[in-house]
Amino acid sequence: MTPPLPQLLYEETVRRALTEDLGRGGDITSDAVVPKDARATGSLVARADLRVCGLDVAALTFRLLDPEIEFLSFKKDGCDAARGDTLASVSGRAGALLSAERVALNFLGRLSGIATTTRSVVSSVAHTQARIVSTRKTTPGLRVLEKYAVRCGGGQNHRLGLDDAVLIKDNHRALAGGVKEALARARANVGHMIKIEIEVDTLDQLREALEAGADAVLLDNMPPETLREAVSLARGRCLTEASGGITPANVRAVAETGVDLISLGWLTHSAPSADVAFDL
Amino acid sequence: MTPPLPQLLYEETVRRALTEDLGRGGDITSDAVVPKDARATGSLVARADLRVCGLDVAALTFRLLDPEIEFLSFKKDGCDAARGDTLASVSGRAGALLSAERVALNFLGRLSGIATTTRSVVSSVAHTQARIVSTRKTTPGLRVLEKYAVRCGGGQNHRLGLDDAVLIKDNHRALAGGVKEALARARANVGHMIKIEIEVDTLDQLREALEAGADAVLLDNMPPETLREAVSLARGRCLTEASGGITPANVRAVAETGVDLISLGWLTHSAPSADVAFDL
Amino acid sequence: MTPPLPQLLYEETVRRALTEDLGRGGDITSDAVVPKDARATGSLVARADLRVCGLDVAALTFRLLDPEIEFLSFKKDGCDAARGDTLASVSGRAGALLSAERVALNFLGRLSGIATTTRSVVSSVAHTQARIVSTRKTTPGLRVLEKYAVRCGGGQNHRLGLDDAVLIKDNHRALAGGVKEALARARANVGHMIKIEIEVDTLDQLREALEAGADAVLLDNMPPETLREAVSLARGRCLTEASGGITPANVRAVAETGVDLISLGWLTHSAPSADVAFDL
Amino acid sequence: MTPPLPQLLYEETVRRALTEDLGRGGDITSDAVVPKDARATGSLVARADLRVCGLDVAALTFRLLDPEIEFLSFKKDGCDAARGDTLASVSGRAGALLSAERVALNFLGRLSGIATTTRSVVSSVAHTQARIVSTRKTTPGLRVLEKYAVRCGGGQNHRLGLDDAVLIKDNHRALAGGVKEALARARANVGHMIKIEIEVDTLDQLREALEAGADAVLLDNMPPETLREAVSLARGRCLTEASGGITPANVRAVAETGVDLISLGWLTHSAPSADVAFDL
Amino acid sequence: MTPPLPQLLYEETVRRALTEDLGRGGDITSDAVVPKDARATGSLVARADLRVCGLDVAALTFRLLDPEIEFLSFKKDGCDAARGDTLASVSGRAGALLSAERVALNFLGRLSGIATTTRSVVSSVAHTQARIVSTRKTTPGLRVLEKYAVRCGGGQNHRLGLDDAVLIKDNHRALAGGVKEALARARANVGHMIKIEIEVDTLDQLREALEAGADAVLLDNMPPETLREAVSLARGRCLTEASGGITPANVRAVAETGVDLISLGWLTHSAPSADVAFDL
Amino acid sequence: MTPPLPQLLYEETVRRALTEDLGRGGDITSDAVVPKDARATGSLVARADLRVCGLDVAALTFRLLDPEIEFLSFKKDGCDAARGDTLASVSGRAGALLSAERVALNFLGRLSGIATTTRSVVSSVAHTQARIVSTRKTTPGLRVLEKYAVRCGGGQNHRLGLDDAVLIKDNHRALAGGVKEALARARANVGHMIKIEIEVDTLDQLREALEAGADAVLLDNMPPETLREAVSLARGRCLTEASGGITPANVRAVAETGVDLISLGWLTHSAPSADVAFDL
Repeated sequence: MTPPLPQLLYEETVRRALTEDLGRGGDITSDAVVPKDARATGSLVARADLRVCGLDVAALTFRLLDPEIEFLSFKKDGCDAARGDTLASVSGRAGALLSAERVALNFLGRLSGIATTTRSVVSSVAHTQARIVSTRKTTPGLRVLEKYAVRCGGGQNHRLGLDDAVLIKDNHRALAGGVKEALARARANVGHMIKIEIEVDTLDQLREALEAGADAVLLDNMPPETLREAVSLARGRCLTEASGGITPANVRAVAETGVDLISLGWLTHSAPSADVAFDL
Repeated sequence: MTPPLPQLLYEETVRRALTEDLGRGGDITSDAVVPKDARATGSLVARADLRVCGLDVAALTFRLLDPEIEFLSFKKDGCDAARGDTLASVSGRAGALLSAERVALNFLGRLSGIATTTRSVVSSVAHTQARIVSTRKTTPGLRVLEKYAVRCGGGQNHRLGLDDAVLIKDNHRALAGGVKEALARARANVGHMIKIEIEVDTLDQLREALEAGADAVLLDNMPPETLREAVSLARGRCLTEASGGITPANVRAVAETGVDLISLGWLTHSAPSADVAFDL
Repeated sequence: MTPPLPQLLYEETVRRALTEDLGRGGDITSDAVVPKDARATGSLVARADLRVCGLDVAALTFRLLDPEIEFLSFKKDGCDAARGDTLASVSGRAGALLSAERVALNFLGRLSGIATTTRSVVSSVAHTQARIVSTRKTTPGLRVLEKYAVRCGGGQNHRLGLDDAVLIKDNHRALAGGVKEALARARANVGHMIKIEIEVDTLDQLREALEAGADAVLLDNMPPETLREAVSLARGRCLTEASGGITPANVRAVAETGVDLISLGWLTHSAPSADVAFDL
Repeated sequence: MTPPLPQLLYEETVRRALTEDLGRGGDITSDAVVPKDARATGSLVARADLRVCGLDVAALTFRLLDPEIEFLSFKKDGCDAARGDTLASVSGRAGALLSAERVALNFLGRLSGIATTTRSVVSSVAHTQARIVSTRKTTPGLRVLEKYAVRCGGGQNHRLGLDDAVLIKDNHRALAGGVKEALARARANVGHMIKIEIEVDTLDQLREALEAGADAVLLDNMPPETLREAVSLARGRCLTEASGGITPANVRAVAETGVDLISLGWLTHSAPSADVAFDL
Repeated sequence: MTPPLPQLLYEETVRRALTEDLGRGGDITSDAVVPKDARATGSLVARADLRVCGLDVAALTFRLLDPEIEFLSFKKDGCDAARGDTLASVSGRAGALLSAERVALNFLGRLSGIATTTRSVVSSVAHTQARIVSTRKTTPGLRVLEKYAVRCGGGQNHRLGLDDAVLIKDNHRALAGGVKEALARARANVGHMIKIEIEVDTLDQLREALEAGADAVLLDNMPPETLREAVSLARGRCLTEASGGITPANVRAVAETGVDLISLGWLTHSAPSADVAFDL
Repeated sequence: MTPPLPQLLYEETVRRALTEDLGRGGDITSDAVVPKDARATGSLVARADLRVCGLDVAALTFRLLDPEIEFLSFKKDGCDAARGDTLASVSGRAGALLSAERVALNFLGRLSGIATTTRSVVSSVAHTQARIVSTRKTTPGLRVLEKYAVRCGGGQNHRLGLDDAVLIKDNHRALAGGVKEALARARANVGHMIKIEIEVDTLDQLREALEAGADAVLLDNMPPETLREAVSLARGRCLTEASGGITPANVRAVAETGVDLISLGWLTHSAPSADVAFDL
């Protein structure tokens, strides 16, 4: 099970999401129309099979809107839910439930969407050794939560940002003067707890990277046969990561080349929202 | 042309996006690998036909990372670009360009993605009177920018949040005791500059709403023939909005029923990212 | 009764108010002088007849200063209190009560001041159809709370800000090239949930606005007889709002012209503070 | 001339004021109605005699909305302006000027209102030795600016908050066990740069305070004759401050008792807004 | 006992300290390695004799990371602890305890370090009348807490910042045109609750300051014999403060000159961290 | 030369440092005493030999206080300066220079203090292969800047926070059930770009760690002879880091054991401030 995030890491994000929805006047519809004392219980329900992510965030959303709302989870982040499953039950003032509903669903839909898409890619490479990793192509402001959603989907995180690992891309390589130079500069300038990966576009570059002692190589846009050859060259010497133009349609073929890692930007930038509803 | 947003409305969002990427150590790859004095010029290039949105945001991203970067736009938000078109050229320290690149692209990709998807839906209802509107199903924290992207795509905004218009949904209606009661309460309790829309599920409810003087009705999940009848009942009395289960495949059929508005949540929650690259 | 604001909409405002008072050293007087274990109970008391507004804000003020303080309200926002009435009772560490007192009173005084002034204007137009509305002439940083105070006083809100309705003033009109052009541009460019009001200075402009289908007209600085004529022209076609130079002395006369709305900036920018005391 | 505040002390306040007005959609009226390229020049004009305060704040307001706006001041904060005087001229995109106008005027009106009211009270005690001081009864969030406005009006600041001086009020005194005990505790517990003032309600308490070496005494709600006697007792031993129930009508009489200081909460909590207009 | 600070004054500081440590991924070690349900109890233990400061801050650190952690203090800020003393016991999820441990210790170590250093200096001037005061040479961002730590160590605060007292240094004096001019300008321009201190480098300047009525004089870098003479000149007329080049080695000698105050920047800028450990 | 930090990473920190010093009233001394038009030039001067760090931060401090101040650096962060060297010259309004001086020096003193201490330790292990690394024992709120100061001093960063590498300490190890179990769990649960280090207290534990494939081992509190043996066991298999009880007095001896890394918490938590002065 994916360990939960400390609330501190997303509380401000939830607060901002609520205030951008409440604006300067609050929920004028519920205020005007819903009887003040009406109480209700609603259910967060999966409208399709999905991998759950965002329940704690949704719970906080309701609680920040009204601390007296009770939120009872039936699932945990990182679990699967089938179409029709109730994820959680939420009770309190009817007006408050309706005020918080949309923001809670916006979080749940996006995060479960990423988790579900990730799960699907992960399962399509089952029984290979390939692990699925996400990139820095995340929604601005949601890096922490989207990386967490990928983990809930069974994927792994590549870098969380620019400062936790070295990834030498084609432009860096060119500006440094080649594979060997780039790797030498990296090794000389970063701390001992930092891993170094380099993008290579040809097998010659790969050989140069292996000699220079890269921790991992990013094999960009290589056809399966080249990937296979690269994997065989790198075996036991460094990790191999395939990247570029990989889709659900071809991910299995890529995995079968024996690469250690497959990274896909669209896990975070283009995964469709999962369909979760709030039934009162 | 869509009027630009004041920078004040997104500056904090850009700052947060950059700092979540830079972390505590900054871009350790560029710092270690790229020669300090190297200067470069890069191009933001459309990799597919798209409706541009986010160029001012991208410009600010580069400028906040390094005020000496020069950003020259060749397009404006709300314009079309063809595959291969250069959207802007960016010059400065090579290391700084590479540090800001990903965040700038994350904004451009998401916002142009929404604008492009919106444009496509708008054009598929051409020559009907239907206008395409977005909902509150936006990415948490990006409401301002995503609503702007919808406008850039030729769509219109429904409510920006909970406080700028009344939208009485099924749950509100039920809690208030029916269409008439809900509309009466709304009318009595909100200011004169607030429009009131109500969701109706049947033609009977529609008739009740028309009698009670709604400004607009949300026709939820109605088949085209019912929509057509509803439009005919409402003609000249209030605006009609179709919603629920509308996809690119059926949006034209819905538009041809004569409804005034069609709202689609997936413009904002599930539009795929547009493909924009940064070529150095 | 005015529906309460979600705490989220003013918590940051209360926090800022407390920290600007506590500074870097806290309440050095109470710390130095009041015995540490002394406990006390204080009462928030109306020193004059008033319309209550700000009790939840005051409660939060005490609670943020010291979560162990108990705050017991005897009134609710939007109720009337007579001189001498106790609004709430507050118990806890004596030093903490004294530290929070001033900020709590600053909120209560200002918000009840606006509510009380509004109530007085509202009651002076009783039995006319005129509703009293506030403007955007609010105290910087307190828009949310002051608009709420107007509602507690029985008034209604005009726009909450620049983005929730269109109000075409004289300068906009002139820059657009006249009443008709301005209204046409507005109609073409804003969403279907946005109402459009236009300022008119003459009856000719009013006729032009009526023809162009404005939702409301702002009748600026017109003498009662002209207002009366304007109301008669606009009847059944659009809402009429009187504005400019309206004071408690003449508001009744304006209301008797039959206008739908009367807006007064001084409800928010010049209402005197209500007299509330904290008696230990 | 009052020294200007560093911009850092109010920039966040201006930013908040603008964003609460712009909301999530910006100025939809100007965006829809004003031709995009229209440029204009406007004047900030005094509609009544006033003491100017807030011009730098207004300038920043326009500049934060649009950095290309030019703001040219003809007056400085702390100067007098006569009805009809132009305070500043502002040039730039017409739409931007109209978007920032209201927030700039809200600052100018409130701050000049406080400065003007203060000036008027100060001048009514001319040729006495009494100085006019403000209290902590300021608008939440605007402490820094309102204290500055009092200085611009010729008044002086009492405490800026709870931590820069000791003011022992009646409740503190009672909880400490009397005048002498309270002063002893204060003296023992605060640093050498902190002045200590104590509220006294009777001449006996005053004598006790003088013996105990207070730096200043707050003479609360004393009639002029008692004040006079108090002043005579305190002469040369400590500063005397009159407070409570002081109005423009009786402030001169109070000043003539010889007190050193007169404090009035309504300088900040109830001063009416000054009338400043923006003429395009 | 030093009165505790309101939590409001440091909550944001604790939140920032935790988020800069948790980054974007949280505590990946505890998440990966520690069994999810493991519970533990840890002790905060003094590894050396020290003056305790920061226990409330440490408690908040644990609580913000996980509200279910229980923190039980055995000491209070401002008390002494001997090597080996347990300061507090902390129970909860083992992973959460380990995640918060370092930040809590960073606060405790720094604040107790300052308190302990201050205590030591204070005790080395025992039985003189000299009080030990800190300066504005504090760690950026920690002014509130470090000033509090000095108070916990038995020292007193000089100014908390630039706005709560006047301290005329050599440069101010020179720019104003001398001691007398500087003091006259200060007296004329600040409020009645503000004390005025001036730096003097010679006995002549001291005499000038005494005549001009300074509240205190800063005797900068004077040898003991000159200090003694200065004290004798100033006796009964104003407070005397020694400053500059004072170390633990010579502070006693300085105190014995009879000065009222001794200020030392290194209490805050160079005090070594106190040794506190967290034993599980 | 150490690559500079993007300003975005410390701008908020500088802003907070300035506002905590300016308080609510600004620099009342300079405002009262320094002639408004006086201009001056000051020099930041090293009062002792030091490694420079914080000049960009100091420059920003002056500029945020007054954008018209000119700051001219003669050194760069990461350079050495000798006693008496001028680091930078600062020109502008005399009052503004004096207002910003203290905060600028507080940054410069602390950061150069850490850099200077680090340099000194680094040079005392010259010609060994040991690299000096800092820990997470940094000042709350200053992690980014203090880690940068260590780099300027020639040291390297260990983890920047809890999320960029795995460091299994004794408590983690015990809770996981031993060295092997802890390493297995870590390997299974973190991404491929994350290095894993484990603390070992005995040579047996070291052997277990080597077999389990740790990337690095933390050798805690081992005497030199044991360290030497550990280094010999680990050679070519994983990095070795010595830690615990290491002081300037014994660091050379530790380095000569052949360890790859030596970590010292006091580089950041107890380094004395460097002596930098601002001479006008």
